[in-house]
Amino acid sequence: MLTFKKIPRHIGIIPDGNRRWAEKNGLPKEAGYRWGIAPGIKVYEMALELGVEELTFYGFTHDNTKRPQKQKQAFQEACVEAVRLLSERDADLLVVGNPFSPAFPRELLPYTGRRVRFGRGLIKVNFLVNYGWDWDLTQGLKRCPPGKRGKKSLHQALASADISRIDLVIRWGGRSRLSGFLPVQTVYADFYVVEDLWPDFKPEHFFRALEWYQEQDVTLGG
Amino acid sequence: MLTFKKIPRHIGIIPDGNRRWAEKNGLPKEAGYRWGIAPGIKVYEMALELGVEELTFYGFTHDNTKRPQKQKQAFQEACVEAVRLLSERDADLLVVGNPFSPAFPRELLPYTGRRVRFGRGLIKVNFLVNYGWDWDLTQGLKRCPPGKRGKKSLHQALASADISRIDLVIRWGGRSRLSGFLPVQTVYADFYVVEDLWPDFKPEHFFRALEWYQEQDVTLGG
Repeated sequence: MLTFKKIPRHIGIIPDGNRRWAEKNGLPKEAGYRWGIAPGIKVYEMALELGVEELTFYGFTHDNTKRPQKQKQAFQEACVEAVRLLSERDADLLVVGNPFSPAFPRELLPYTGRRVRFGRGLIKVNFLVNYGWDWDLTQGLKRCPPGKRGKKSLHQALASADISRIDLVIRWGGRSRLSGFLPVQTVYADFYVVEDLWPDFKPEHFFRALEWYQEQDVTLGG
Repeated sequence: MLTFKKIPRHIGIIPDGNRRWAEKNGLPKEAGYRWGIAPGIKVYEMALELGVEELTFYGFTHDNTKRPQKQKQAFQEACVEAVRLLSERDADLLVVGNPFSPAFPRELLPYTGRRVRFGRGLIKVNFLVNYGWDWDLTQGLKRCPPGKRGKKSLHQALASADISRIDLVIRWGGRSRLSGFLPVQTVYADFYVVEDLWPDFKPEHFFRALEWYQEQDVTLGG
């Protein structure tokens, strides 16, 4: 394992490119998602070993649920399977997304609202499932008292309030955009793009992102 | 002038690196900002010629105003001068930022709250001055009726409601992060980083960003 002079406290993962990977490999689009599960577990293991405190995976969004039924079912199943695999390891899991919708897999309901410990915990893992950036922010519209202002009270009012500020976002699949990934927590995040598609994950991708990150200064907008 | 098969409707500009440029050139940090004015006018001219409909410049933020007084004064003056130069051209200008603060240059008050036409208009120009992402979002916390949800009503409730969704963000100065730049409007924006510092602006930077953009697909999260 390499050593780094600075490790991000909280890493966000955008695992994009499952459908493109399936097509490239002569498979129907929906077949790509299951190939994205093992890379997620690998990233979890590497983050744990490096001492990352918190890890957030972009599962699927409200926007994504407008896709064909076969794809929708495939990414829902992949999320459930990923949590099953994680439950055999050490993690404090929180699933964040709108649970009041048939698109939310009911197997994941026990992990919403409060963090659930698997094994010895050791690392916070957040999983965005049926998440929407506008849904996340509009919780704040309801709950934040108008008299209270500032970054902290705004963060506390989000549906994703229990997910902390993100230091580094890594996106696979070559696209250079956040696509609604936790707009408040990513405000100061450094953003790193991996050209390879997510099912083609290699440990070097993750290491290169960390190497790049350690050369970035942190100003938090100051 | 080159031709492009696709031009972003709305471009966001993060003109970073003025202080680093000053230091590199043996000047005090605050001397960098005035060298950032001419590049801004050049980008405006190029955008106008290419038919870009809307252009948003990141002026300064609440976070920035915690810097030493000399720097604060220098970037405030640079914003005022940039607007003066723009007023001699064609643009529909809107300045967005908290005007109820001594950090807001009073010369720019006439351009808040409503768009002001210079010359024949021809292009919308937005200028973020004393802007804060939390300030922008917490306007929504007050004004958005709890019963109304969705991306559109959320956008309409922002302090920056009159700034439309951004297609492409170009950041100079090598840092790969949004630093609080319009978190709602940039949710689906493609993000392009120029390594050179903003006062070292060259037209090729802008052209290369547009060349890159035309190869990006647009999914809006779907």
